[in-house]
Amino acid sequence: MPNNLLPAINLQPVAAGGLLDRRGFLSVGTALAVAGTTALTGQAAPLEVPSHSRVPGRSFLPYGEPSAFVLPVLKRGLGQPYGDIAPGAGSAFTPLQALHGTITPASLHFERSHSGVPDIDPAQHRLVIHGLVKRPLAFSHEALLRYPMVSRTLFIECSGNSFFQTLPTAQQLPIGMLNGLLSCSEWTGVMLSTLLDEAGIDPRGRWLIAEGADAASMSRSIPLEKAMDDVMVALYQNGEPIRPEQGFPMRLVLPGFEGNMSVKWLRRLKVTEGPVHSKDETSKYTDLLPDGKALQFTYVMGVKSVITRPSPRMTMGAPGFYEISGLAWSGAGRIRRVEVSADGGRSWADAALQEPVLDRSVVRFGLPWRWDGALVTLESRATDELGRVQEPRATWKARYAPGNRYHFNAIQTWHVDAQGEVTNAYA
Amino acid sequence: MPNNLLPAINLQPVAAGGLLDRRGFLSVGTALAVAGTTALTGQAAPLEVPSHSRVPGRSFLPYGEPSAFVLPVLKRGLGQPYGDIAPGAGSAFTPLQALHGTITPASLHFERSHSGVPDIDPAQHRLVIHGLVKRPLAFSHEALLRYPMVSRTLFIECSGNSFFQTLPTAQQLPIGMLNGLLSCSEWTGVMLSTLLDEAGIDPRGRWLIAEGADAASMSRSIPLEKAMDDVMVALYQNGEPIRPEQGFPMRLVLPGFEGNMSVKWLRRLKVTEGPVHSKDETSKYTDLLPDGKALQFTYVMGVKSVITRPSPRMTMGAPGFYEISGLAWSGAGRIRRVEVSADGGRSWADAALQEPVLDRSVVRFGLPWRWDGALVTLESRATDELGRVQEPRATWKARYAPGNRYHFNAIQTWHVDAQGEVTNAYA
Repeated sequence: MPNNLLPAINLQPVAAGGLLDRRGFLSVGTALAVAGTTALTGQAAPLEVPSHSRVPGRSFLPYGEPSAFVLPVLKRGLGQPYGDIAPGAGSAFTPLQALHGTITPASLHFERSHSGVPDIDPAQHRLVIHGLVKRPLAFSHEALLRYPMVSRTLFIECSGNSFFQTLPTAQQLPIGMLNGLLSCSEWTGVMLSTLLDEAGIDPRGRWLIAEGADAASMSRSIPLEKAMDDVMVALYQNGEPIRPEQGFPMRLVLPGFEGNMSVKWLRRLKVTEGPVHSKDETSKYTDLLPDGKALQFTYVMGVKSVITRPSPRMTMGAPGFYEISGLAWSGAGRIRRVEVSADGGRSWADAALQEPVLDRSVVRFGLPWRWDGALVTLESRATDELGRVQEPRATWKARYAPGNRYHFNAIQTWHVDAQGEVTNAYA
Repeated sequence: MPNNLLPAINLQPVAAGGLLDRRGFLSVGTALAVAGTTALTGQAAPLEVPSHSRVPGRSFLPYGEPSAFVLPVLKRGLGQPYGDIAPGAGSAFTPLQALHGTITPASLHFERSHSGVPDIDPAQHRLVIHGLVKRPLAFSHEALLRYPMVSRTLFIECSGNSFFQTLPTAQQLPIGMLNGLLSCSEWTGVMLSTLLDEAGIDPRGRWLIAEGADAASMSRSIPLEKAMDDVMVALYQNGEPIRPEQGFPMRLVLPGFEGNMSVKWLRRLKVTEGPVHSKDETSKYTDLLPDGKALQFTYVMGVKSVITRPSPRMTMGAPGFYEISGLAWSGAGRIRRVEVSADGGRSWADAALQEPVLDRSVVRFGLPWRWDGALVTLESRATDELGRVQEPRATWKARYAPGNRYHFNAIQTWHVDAQGEVTNAYA
């Protein structure tokens, strides 16, 4: 029988704290001793037939909804980090602690809005390409639907993601609030190079300014080289038309670049000789250094990983077998390796990476783990295809001024105590 | 400049009816002459600032929703093919005509229910594995969450999908009703082999019967060889816990096998020596032959493709450049090739396949097309990695008795008339 051919999992730890061989993923073998698994005896009572197996359930919905049992724990965390500057200015965080796999449902994709969410009539909307072009053009939504479409599964991460972890005393928050300005979707749309090529770039053109149709007119400068490489005018997210809070009827998607360059409610692309230094790329989205200077145009997001399960504010069950699971990503390309430590970084074990490992997408990693009920310190450390490696938090912080909150991508550390409480080690 | 290095699209047709080279996907070049694209002159009026750019939009939602402009066209088509047999017995169809890319949002995944949708409390639910096993086991939902998880992007297709196309006079319906008992999701869960291995299969065990907790107790026999190969007990769909109509808190997912073997609301797996011939696999889900015999256990779904854009009940815009787009899939593995014809199958052109082409997932194909405004007859034809090729409808129908409705996977044909109306050629 096939099951007799399967090797049992190697239950000898490969690193301290009970970390097991990642190849246990392929066939776990017997006797995991997971609490909540009950051995039944031959004398067990017949299976109970629950009430929902006796009466018909509800009929169809034209647009489905989550279970009433999960919706309360599924909702996005809401943040208003800039107070009352403007209605709808702030963030909504993806609840990473309640999710698994790699795709973020559109309803739970993070959101960073500077002046709320318009719901735009696509029949009235136009995308204009002008400035240093041979043929200024205005595209209707319907016209864009006739162009060749491409689909790519890509993460988008706000450069302010994980800002709670940059504070001198970090916060004791669930993983969705600590790292949930990160989401991953299948984006489908028209390559921007197709549209720019149709407009014809004047040889003096080197940059674009992209402007949104929200009340903040959110604007960013984009190097033409990136625009002609892999930028998409996205019309669909995870199969359906993109949501209002993601920029319906159309948004830019810049693979691997900081999130707010993927301008939502895109209405205008002006080709220019240089960057425009808009308000959205001078007052914010810069990196303050210890000497008072600031780095600007630091577009490519760092290599990063976080353990989502277990993670802060979870409580472990009984000691025994678990899987450590998390997400890794890099703005520069594919993730090549994720290591996990259960002793605060003294010993490391290679995690398994879920295939396919895609360019500038998130990858789910996992490692079998036998928790013995004692205190452990969990960390993950990702390496990308450029060889960039996550560094310790202290190293990251030393490179910036104390108040810098952008582009945090250091190693994050969770404690699991003897009562099974999981906490953020920095808080 | 990068754009000067791009080759223009080859506008010479590669097959009749205006089909263009698929490599046009990579860089389309200039002068597509898409209606709805307006050339702006230097004397154009300043861009209008619409009202939604003047006042802040709505604030955040804890669980997002589609735009009010798209929700009406996005809803699933509902069918009650078996009348009043039981409340909630019937189907809901994925609106393929309104979607793009490859992922189906959970809210729009097709549904086939035999007695409605229960919403089950996961804390009360148990999955029991018994029968010819060494250690009968009962798994709580919480226990399953501790096991190693895998994620796979897989299609699920009802074996009754496209049944309207099997009728002597097919129906004039949108593509979602014609082919929308097909959907594709990222499924995440525990490999069934892990759980069966823990229970320990008795050497006499060769089959399983899988039973759902709905009021129909939907049950199917599954060969143990498949169960130990690639079957998953899925807990998450597209990142979030699976929806009630998809089997919350857990369902089987059998890659490539006919849909209703992926038993929803999974409550019991009994290991047996032979198939059980449940009501759900004898009265239905068999293939009636011309001689009155019926094929049973025809599990692996055929190789199949459909053009989703343009498709029946759409109306084309002005003549000029379009993309022909569609979906292809096979229950036996990867799609290797999709060809498109615009002259009813006399000449064919290779379509581009969107990477990554995954095993037993859908693949999006596309081909640039210059429609000259005359009548054309569009078809697509997929080939999978086993070399299986879609066959003409007449060939398919000749292999079965006239009333057979299952496993329809023949070539489908759309007419585009001189007024731009798109119709189903079989209706």
